[in-house]
Amino acid sequence: MKLNDNLNLKGNYKIFANVSKEIKEYKDTHKDNKVISLGIGDTSMPISKNIISSMKKACDDLGNIETFYGYGGSNGYDFLREKIWEEEYKKFGISKEEVYVASGTKTDSTSILELFDINSKICITNPMYPIYRDGALCLNRSVSILDIDEKDNFICNIPKEKYDIIYICSPSNPTGIAYTKDDLSKWIKYANQNNSVIIFDNVYDYFITSKDVPFSIYEVEGAKECAIELKSFSKKASFTGVRCSYYVIPEEICEGINTLWKKRNINRYNGADYIAQKGAYAFYDKESQKEIKEHMNYYKENAKLLRECFLKNGFKVYGGIDSPYLWIKINNGMDSWEMFRYFLNNIEVVIVPGVVFGSKGDEFFRVSSLGSRENTKEAIERIDKFYEK
Amino acid sequence: MKLNDNLNLKGNYKIFANVSKEIKEYKDTHKDNKVISLGIGDTSMPISKNIISSMKKACDDLGNIETFYGYGGSNGYDFLREKIWEEEYKKFGISKEEVYVASGTKTDSTSILELFDINSKICITNPMYPIYRDGALCLNRSVSILDIDEKDNFICNIPKEKYDIIYICSPSNPTGIAYTKDDLSKWIKYANQNNSVIIFDNVYDYFITSKDVPFSIYEVEGAKECAIELKSFSKKASFTGVRCSYYVIPEEICEGINTLWKKRNINRYNGADYIAQKGAYAFYDKESQKEIKEHMNYYKENAKLLRECFLKNGFKVYGGIDSPYLWIKINNGMDSWEMFRYFLNNIEVVIVPGVVFGSKGDEFFRVSSLGSRENTKEAIERIDKFYEK
Repeated sequence: MKLNDNLNLKGNYKIFANVSKEIKEYKDTHKDNKVISLGIGDTSMPISKNIISSMKKACDDLGNIETFYGYGGSNGYDFLREKIWEEEYKKFGISKEEVYVASGTKTDSTSILELFDINSKICITNPMYPIYRDGALCLNRSVSILDIDEKDNFICNIPKEKYDIIYICSPSNPTGIAYTKDDLSKWIKYANQNNSVIIFDNVYDYFITSKDVPFSIYEVEGAKECAIELKSFSKKASFTGVRCSYYVIPEEICEGINTLWKKRNINRYNGADYIAQKGAYAFYDKESQKEIKEHMNYYKENAKLLRECFLKNGFKVYGGIDSPYLWIKINNGMDSWEMFRYFLNNIEVVIVPGVVFGSKGDEFFRVSSLGSRENTKEAIERIDKFYEK
Repeated sequence: MKLNDNLNLKGNYKIFANVSKEIKEYKDTHKDNKVISLGIGDTSMPISKNIISSMKKACDDLGNIETFYGYGGSNGYDFLREKIWEEEYKKFGISKEEVYVASGTKTDSTSILELFDINSKICITNPMYPIYRDGALCLNRSVSILDIDEKDNFICNIPKEKYDIIYICSPSNPTGIAYTKDDLSKWIKYANQNNSVIIFDNVYDYFITSKDVPFSIYEVEGAKECAIELKSFSKKASFTGVRCSYYVIPEEICEGINTLWKKRNINRYNGADYIAQKGAYAFYDKESQKEIKEHMNYYKENAKLLRECFLKNGFKVYGGIDSPYLWIKINNGMDSWEMFRYFLNNIEVVIVPGVVFGSKGDEFFRVSSLGSRENTKEAIERIDKFYEK
């Protein structure tokens, strides 16, 4: 019996693992010290009270023979699909049957590749969220890589070659930069000319503040002919532990694409959790939205404080406006791995070395605003004090 | 852009869809009548009160900044992995790191194929739960099929050919037959001689009553060297809507297999729901176990009543002893599709035509004991009355 060699990921996975390993080693040898992480991708705000109360009601449903819910269908319970459709997609002329509910965008972003021929030409960017590449490898697909540059504000240029599948993450992890309508228009034109599909990872939608950045890719003309949009409740509703995501496959991409995908889902997946879906439904309630906006403002204030701190101390700073992430250029000639160690050893603050996201990230590091205000402030104090010297 | 042709499943999927379609059509044209389904694979008992109270507490955790839980890791929260290990696997010398928590065995049973080379020779049986074949196709794998016969009591004979991966579902969906320790010993010997892996789908473990049928495959000597066991809380804890499953990959199968699988998981999956995992943890409490045993007895009584009914009316009946399913031989020369329509049109009782599970099932139909007592009794009355004539 032969194992799948493709799982032997030698690149970014290994770097990620090494980051965690070094942090652990540092903590183990400095047990009395407080290491503050600005590296986290998890949320620190709890789930809205209104959502919690819906989820508790959902638990009661499951404990009662009259209201018990079992299998909800591979594509989500109708109540949630319909709600998401009404709130977010009906206005674009998208049909309810094109909206899918699932258990997390990490899985969706690579599982969606099962929809396409195994030899499809896939392209991702450098730097980029490494999961697209490594997930594609796990599924025996190979990927091409397009470099993106600081001089282009980390917006990927349109390639000359034809690719079948293009990954765009916007607002971007790691750069924190969001594609404007104009940026997306160019990609949509390219995709429609080449009969390609854009997989648009838009999980940070609630962090968008810039007027020219669309909340959904379907705001841009032509997107329904080429784009699959992925969204999630993880970051905006603090559902990182709850697991509920959604995505849209417009039939305009290719007739029969939804029928085919439903055949896949019925054979591979029994749907997301009922309690999570009831919670996601309540996400759209006014009471929830009010609390969630407060949480977003909390993170945004963290981002603002971090931005000011790094600017003040002589760094060039990207992101943090439409995204919880700041992408900071290293200013002392170190590579990102050295910079990670420099911060850890000198001020016990964890940052993510940019090389985790590809070789083009090696002049940068990623900082997250998703931590608590207290920790964010303490990290800022340490950084300020360190650079004062 | 080319879609994945493999998703164009022409066989069992289509039959399944046609069954649902015909039931819907019948109901639409007979709106005042009560159609009773003996076809269901879903549970009808609610979730144990003790589990519900744990899940509600878990909701509260997530609503509170001090107790908020985010990402739990791709392989499950430690609290649940450790609990499952202690309760079920420690005694077999399996390590905690070999136990994984996920969101449902339908997904696990085919996703596990990502662990193996894409050209591995996979075998399934006929009849069998069709997901193994169709899920494998979705993942661009092909499968070979071994026929199993009534004369062998639906236990698959050891083949002469070498296969790399062998699917065994026991207690079986659809036949309701469970492999005894002796049956499994032969397969384990075959697998160890041929360096193959057995994917052992054991989601109906709580329905087992026969003394010679193991509760876990690891009770059988040599299993740790070749078997991956899949289990789920769906049927036993009524978690069909909650989504929590688990599986074991013993390192003895091949050194490094767990390291490789963890690389896959970190790139493909962000873990199961926190609330579901807290519920699954409470499954092992004495109070939950007591209630769950009552539910199992309830289904078993249904199975006993159904068994007696079909025997009395001249059918040959398999299963229903170690499984919620009964596999009944058609005794009037009809094929299983005709038999399905015969029951639907004459007595408005739904059964599953055996051909859904492969051509070798076409002389049989599947009946489920997972419905309510009231519906089960009413279906039995209708069957008795119909055959009395």
